[in-house]
Amino acid sequence: MAGCCHRLRLDDSARDDARQRLRSVRGHVDGILRMLDQEDTYCVDVLKQVKAVQGALDRVGGLVLRAHLRDHVTTANERGDVEEMVEELMEVLKYR
Amino acid sequence: MAGCCHRLRLDDSARDDARQRLRSVRGHVDGILRMLDQEDTYCVDVLKQVKAVQGALDRVGGLVLRAHLRDHVTTANERGDVEEMVEELMEVLKYR
Amino acid sequence: MAGCCHRLRLDDSARDDARQRLRSVRGHVDGILRMLDQEDTYCVDVLKQVKAVQGALDRVGGLVLRAHLRDHVTTANERGDVEEMVEELMEVLKYR
Amino acid sequence: MAGCCHRLRLDDSARDDARQRLRSVRGHVDGILRMLDQEDTYCVDVLKQVKAVQGALDRVGGLVLRAHLRDHVTTANERGDVEEMVEELMEVLKYR
Repeated sequence: MAGCCHRLRLDDSARDDARQRLRSVRGHVDGILRMLDQEDTYCVDVLKQVKAVQGALDRVGGLVLRAHLRDHVTTANERGDVEEMVEELMEVLKYR
Repeated sequence: MAGCCHRLRLDDSARDDARQRLRSVRGHVDGILRMLDQEDTYCVDVLKQVKAVQGALDRVGGLVLRAHLRDHVTTANERGDVEEMVEELMEVLKYR
Repeated sequence: MAGCCHRLRLDDSARDDARQRLRSVRGHVDGILRMLDQEDTYCVDVLKQVKAVQGALDRVGGLVLRAHLRDHVTTANERGDVEEMVEELMEVLKYR
Repeated sequence: MAGCCHRLRLDDSARDDARQRLRSVRGHVDGILRMLDQEDTYCVDVLKQVKAVQGALDRVGGLVLRAHLRDHVTTANERGDVEEMVEELMEVLKYR
């Protein structure tokens, strides 16, 4: 994995933003768990909440991806790890 | 929303299965939060974990959807709420 | 496959709508092929066109799905093929 | 758009591969059109074919994306258009 040997790490502001959003994702998951404890919970309401959490996770993925493109992928040619960076990214982008 | 007036509710076994999976999703989100606390966390590792959580949520959505189709959609014609059930489902399925 | 023995067929108006949209998809694909013949075609422009065609196909899928839900899935309980209809639909919905 | 002023263009081998796949996509779309002309065509069969075409388009998108990452994004820092390249890519990747 390219990152470890090149000391490539996730940028601090993207890290804080991701942390904040993931905490709200966790709260949202707890909310769905509470829904499931209610006797008359309706399936479609649960489906809508699951989708909302997935949307929030998409946004976490988006901000981490942006930081990665900006800090690591756009400098790959200078570092000499183009092939590795491209294949790694193609793998993680599959079925996002 | 069709469910509330018709007393349509999520089936118990799907409910338990969803509960269990959501608890593991929450644990997984905590794992990503711990990753973000590590100084040298690499972006692509975070992206992979976010995708894994989304996959787990897909499976939660899948089992709730299956219960909903089986228990509520396939009997809509007899209940007389075909149009409502179809539109509600089309909305929640939009680009799952 | 449930459809063949039960004489379940795609409704005419959905069929016409799908036909029309698919013809425009074909024209759109031809447009991308022409783009590829231009010497200085830029990758991102091709990617945008491919995504536009996928969006159009999503809409074709959406209108066929709606017709299927309305005409076949909501009457499955009366026909007695609930399990088959649900599993068939879950399969085709996976990663739409 | 970054590409035009910097003379960034889609690499020839990716271009040929994309061309070939798009021709087979067109043939596949024609196949679905023929399906729609058959009186007893079943909805789920049409849905499966639409999904197959979308999968083929995913692969066209994937090979163009790979060429773009390798030829243009990984050299953005040296060219000085990092911000533009990253935003352009984030836009086109949005829920691929």
